[in-house]
Amino acid sequence: MTPVGSTTSPMARALAEAEGAALAGDVPVGAVVVDAQGHVVAAAANQVRRQGDPTAHAEMLAIREATRELGAERLVDCDLYVTLEPCAMCAQAISLARIRRLFFGAADPKGGAVEHGPRLYSLATCHHRPEVYGGIDEARAAELLRRFFATRRSD
Amino acid sequence: MTPVGSTTSPMARALAEAEGAALAGDVPVGAVVVDAQGHVVAAAANQVRRQGDPTAHAEMLAIREATRELGAERLVDCDLYVTLEPCAMCAQAISLARIRRLFFGAADPKGGAVEHGPRLYSLATCHHRPEVYGGIDEARAAELLRRFFATRRSD
Repeated sequence: MTPVGSTTSPMARALAEAEGAALAGDVPVGAVVVDAQGHVVAAAANQVRRQGDPTAHAEMLAIREATRELGAERLVDCDLYVTLEPCAMCAQAISLARIRRLFFGAADPKGGAVEHGPRLYSLATCHHRPEVYGGIDEARAAELLRRFFATRRSD
Repeated sequence: MTPVGSTTSPMARALAEAEGAALAGDVPVGAVVVDAQGHVVAAAANQVRRQGDPTAHAEMLAIREATRELGAERLVDCDLYVTLEPCAMCAQAISLARIRRLFFGAADPKGGAVEHGPRLYSLATCHHRPEVYGGIDEARAAELLRRFFATRRSD
């Protein structure tokens, strides 16, 4: 049984979104946007397969939902939790949306663009850098991904 | 008067989209996706202000429209024309969508991510690199942007 405090944390919610994605055949990544008070404003799972849209990463969907929900183009006081290190598309979207803090789970040496690859927030051309905290519930996020790809390989 | 051949070229169509964006108060950038036969599959303008969505760049909207139109998650035989060098979000989306060739107009030393900043397609972590052709109708694309920002500064 998972303690209540854990299931209601933003990263636990993001992990639940990721689990839902896996069950539906999408790579298990989930994202949540919370406001300055820590209330969940938007939550989304990766939907690339289901929507047939290569841009439908969890972070993109959560950011778009949050801007609609708050009626604001810039999410200045909001934080984003995501189970996997964002790719360049999502990392740049996080910057464009002026997200205050980014919390991510598993590192992604192949596709990540925050601590790997282009390391977008370290570039002089980056206009807005969120504070970044990696490795949050990393083991669970990584295990979800490992299990998903292991199952697909054995299909 | 614009010659017929010019108005029907993909970049002319993208420039027309950009002009429409400026009239509506959005930064004038336009994008067009064409299929292997050169037929326009999707055309979009930047809609960040109008949609209140920081991810509503012209390239993102055109890619999403094209995947819906073709019922395909990957636009493997498609080319994308855009009036401005793509930012990191759009450049990565172009890679994720498996776009074959990217034609862009004005270079963007501050926000571009193809020939400037992270130069995403030059990184070892980039899984799919489109062929890139910059400077297409560059003067017109740049002039549109200059005029737009000059007008706003004098407001």
